[in-house]
Amino acid sequence: MKMEKVEIGHGSGGKLTRELIEEVFLKYFNFPELHTLQDATYLPGISRIAVTTDSYVVRPLFFPGGDIGKLSISGTVNDLTVSGALPRYITAGFIVEEGLPIETLERIVSSMAETAKTAGVKIVAGDTKVVEKGKCDGIYINTAGVGEVVRELSPKLIKPGDSVIVTGFVGDHGVAISLAREEFDVETPVESDCAPLNSLLTPLFKLPGLRFMRDPTRGGLATVLVELSDSSGFGVRVYEDRVPVREEVRFICDMLGYDPLYLANEGKAVIVVSPEDTDEALEILHSNPLGKDASVIGEVVSDPGVTLVTSIGGVRRLELLEEDPLPRIC
Amino acid sequence: MKMEKVEIGHGSGGKLTRELIEEVFLKYFNFPELHTLQDATYLPGISRIAVTTDSYVVRPLFFPGGDIGKLSISGTVNDLTVSGALPRYITAGFIVEEGLPIETLERIVSSMAETAKTAGVKIVAGDTKVVEKGKCDGIYINTAGVGEVVRELSPKLIKPGDSVIVTGFVGDHGVAISLAREEFDVETPVESDCAPLNSLLTPLFKLPGLRFMRDPTRGGLATVLVELSDSSGFGVRVYEDRVPVREEVRFICDMLGYDPLYLANEGKAVIVVSPEDTDEALEILHSNPLGKDASVIGEVVSDPGVTLVTSIGGVRRLELLEEDPLPRIC
Repeated sequence: MKMEKVEIGHGSGGKLTRELIEEVFLKYFNFPELHTLQDATYLPGISRIAVTTDSYVVRPLFFPGGDIGKLSISGTVNDLTVSGALPRYITAGFIVEEGLPIETLERIVSSMAETAKTAGVKIVAGDTKVVEKGKCDGIYINTAGVGEVVRELSPKLIKPGDSVIVTGFVGDHGVAISLAREEFDVETPVESDCAPLNSLLTPLFKLPGLRFMRDPTRGGLATVLVELSDSSGFGVRVYEDRVPVREEVRFICDMLGYDPLYLANEGKAVIVVSPEDTDEALEILHSNPLGKDASVIGEVVSDPGVTLVTSIGGVRRLELLEEDPLPRIC
Repeated sequence: MKMEKVEIGHGSGGKLTRELIEEVFLKYFNFPELHTLQDATYLPGISRIAVTTDSYVVRPLFFPGGDIGKLSISGTVNDLTVSGALPRYITAGFIVEEGLPIETLERIVSSMAETAKTAGVKIVAGDTKVVEKGKCDGIYINTAGVGEVVRELSPKLIKPGDSVIVTGFVGDHGVAISLAREEFDVETPVESDCAPLNSLLTPLFKLPGLRFMRDPTRGGLATVLVELSDSSGFGVRVYEDRVPVREEVRFICDMLGYDPLYLANEGKAVIVVSPEDTDEALEILHSNPLGKDASVIGEVVSDPGVTLVTSIGGVRRLELLEEDPLPRIC
């Protein structure tokens, strides 16, 4: 079916997003990152530099565990880090709605500054535009990041037998946002995992067997694995009962009809590492509070596609998301 | 008066914008570019690299002489160029309104690609978010740019006696947007000057007497000169009848109550150059169609402040814009 209009699902990070990218953007642009499936682009002419960009339109602006400011810094820091770069500099573009209380803007900006400090990155350039009431949802933020490349990671490096690690519980961000939007009787027991991951992940750069990393944001863990399979030519086998999901998240997903494997995370990474370096990778991850629940959830296999071995021993194939379960998640 | 809410004028590029930057952003961030009055930031740790960012929220999306796509590439190319850098790489973040015709998106994206090609820059990373109907005006675009620094230019380098050059007619973009918004009986005779200026300006990098360049976008020529005075400690004297303004622009400004000195330009630069290098600068500029109307409009003087010598010989002091004459100009 020919696309005629932009739909909410085009922002899902799933199948529709890929279609939009392939049918519109790739026709005119040639983003290297689209071909290499990295979250940041290595600049060929400027040695050791990677760049990335992301816009943030999350609703609500403040949620348990974070806010749009913390998210906008964490997301860009994480995109650089999973690309094997040390995040260094960030630019920030603000689109602000007329009437936004200055106090709200200030909370967001101070949260960005604090997160940047935690991550050790400098916010070096900015821009502010104001639009009329109703023409945005309080504030949209774009961040772009510049990092110094230490390791060039790529889906092309993975091999059958490699371990697939996730650094902790999945689905927290998605559920936290969902609960923050709705009036539920639950006393919001889930916080977003929103956090800059460079302190957790950069120590892995020294492992010779480190192949690929990615942060499973929009589209969740499943989407990262499907894209990894699509661009490597190999497959992934994942064991459902090894994927860390909080009891509360599982409960709320059952209630709302979400699949935690497709929910966004903002403080997690998927890591592919050689069998030889798996133990050391886990040791490094477990030594940091952000990675204390890191687990090997599966392995790379030679047949393409992503297979989920369910807890009752069944087998399910994971595909790209068809619809966006939760728009405006980041 | 204490600011309580964000107002349209906070996006004007004038006095309110400066207040917002000083009272909110500078409290938490330390953008070097805010202190040095450059449009891009030199990255101290990474040699020879400059970065910049801008968001584009122009209304309407298409206007005589350009569109939001062309604008978003030209603006970032120009910010890097006037900072003495060769523009190299651009990232693009799209916030798209649900329901935007794909054909419209495609026109914009292809215009970006074409402008990038003209300017010799590569669009290397991108991101797309979709918001619900009514939550943006079709599309907002953020671009961030990375350039290689050739000349470090700064207001601190200017000296009394230096020439102040503008590269062509001022006010075209502002008037073109204004006409595109309203139903006038005039047959839109003014096109936006929107264009990437690197082919025009980078040949000036070789002049030892080149001190400072800036593109007079939001806030116009007057704002650039006031900020130049504020951050250099010297003043500028400008001669009204030397500032190139098209007859049609002057006519429409009179009709609508605009001052062309405060209207946005998207394809012009203000240049400060030593007296010794002024002739060569003009020669270089005149040899490019984008600079054929370049003129010396005034000079740097020792007393701070910006003085306009009017065509009838009077003297008027130029200040920062108080209100935004034309919101959403870029």
